[in-house]
Amino acid sequence: MRFDIITVLPGLLESPFAHSILQRAQKKGLVEIYVHNLRDYATNKHKSVDDYPYGGGSGMVMQIEPFAACIEKLQRERNYDEVIFMSPDGERLNQTIANGLALHENLIILCGHYKGIDQRIRDLYVTKEISIGDYVLSGGELPAAVLVDAIARLIPGVLSDETSALSDSFQGELLDAPVYTRPAEWRGHKVPDILLSGNQSLIDNWRYEQSLARTRERRPDLLDE
Amino acid sequence: MRFDIITVLPGLLESPFAHSILQRAQKKGLVEIYVHNLRDYATNKHKSVDDYPYGGGSGMVMQIEPFAACIEKLQRERNYDEVIFMSPDGERLNQTIANGLALHENLIILCGHYKGIDQRIRDLYVTKEISIGDYVLSGGELPAAVLVDAIARLIPGVLSDETSALSDSFQGELLDAPVYTRPAEWRGHKVPDILLSGNQSLIDNWRYEQSLARTRERRPDLLDE
Repeated sequence: MRFDIITVLPGLLESPFAHSILQRAQKKGLVEIYVHNLRDYATNKHKSVDDYPYGGGSGMVMQIEPFAACIEKLQRERNYDEVIFMSPDGERLNQTIANGLALHENLIILCGHYKGIDQRIRDLYVTKEISIGDYVLSGGELPAAVLVDAIARLIPGVLSDETSALSDSFQGELLDAPVYTRPAEWRGHKVPDILLSGNQSLIDNWRYEQSLARTRERRPDLLDE
Repeated sequence: MRFDIITVLPGLLESPFAHSILQRAQKKGLVEIYVHNLRDYATNKHKSVDDYPYGGGSGMVMQIEPFAACIEKLQRERNYDEVIFMSPDGERLNQTIANGLALHENLIILCGHYKGIDQRIRDLYVTKEISIGDYVLSGGELPAAVLVDAIARLIPGVLSDETSALSDSFQGELLDAPVYTRPAEWRGHKVPDILLSGNQSLIDNWRYEQSLARTRERRPDLLDE
């Protein structure tokens, strides 16, 4: 699967893609991530990609021409399943959306910055707008990294133990049960006896009940759906 | 404001904190961000910080001792307002939570990895669990970066134009109106005439109506609250 990310801050995305699961996924050849510097597509001599908003107001607006040039260049090279704009106005990312996107081959992701991007980019090029949550961030770069991480880990072979992804919170519509590891007792705080019992069916039942109780307490909305 | 982030992947967080608004906020002395390598607090000779889960199952669990050692060292040095664990089980981050956290002085943020962290860390040290959204990621590092970004930009002086943060989506409980910048016409696609009219009160009305219409269409839940 291939991700093309268009940003004014390519450097910001360096370390998240160079570590852990995303690094391994790229080394295994399962994921390709290309970060494009929007300024390389600026048409003016100052390499600026933003300008004042029509109608006044604070903040700068990203111009249509550099985005159009970069997107059209990529689209001449291959077909893209979606051109995604990371925006707090978008559809809120959830596991179902991530699962669906993980079936695609090529995605373009646009990172906004400053006050926003010219609406015509959204009208003419963007096929999907995604928000990672109801809060304001300084740009679309961290949301793009979050989206790539959420999708990439679902691609078969990326995680070393496939059952691990399947048993995560949200894949089963319940929050995870508490987990414990060594030592069995730490400053008087013990691991629940049942986990040390060796009786797997009792343990599985306990975990299911704990998952259900935690979901009921913290996220009753997940049980209503 | 000071952030202490505890992680097994300190390198993953390098570039997000070294660019853009977070970089400037640190240079201005408004924000301090310290990333602590959990492995430095490992007590065994292999510097491992995780072990198999009690009761079986896939994935590794992060142990209590290294987290306890790092948190207690920090707490001996200063008072912390919250010890936050980034977790999909947590309270979902929204702008109200970010606004509240921005009033604090010192925050510790724990990044989980693998299958999770020993429940006793959550029971004994964590004062707040925050989720950035209903999706699974490979670790708490990107969520921690998202949280720091959401908070830091609210600190007075961090954004160059303070009105810019106030007029963002979610601060006013409505999504943003469309924005446009030069050129006024691009391949036949024009900026709405009203934005070129110079009549500020008509423009303000248009923007309010566009905000309302977009919110009604995309996020009617925000209007119900």
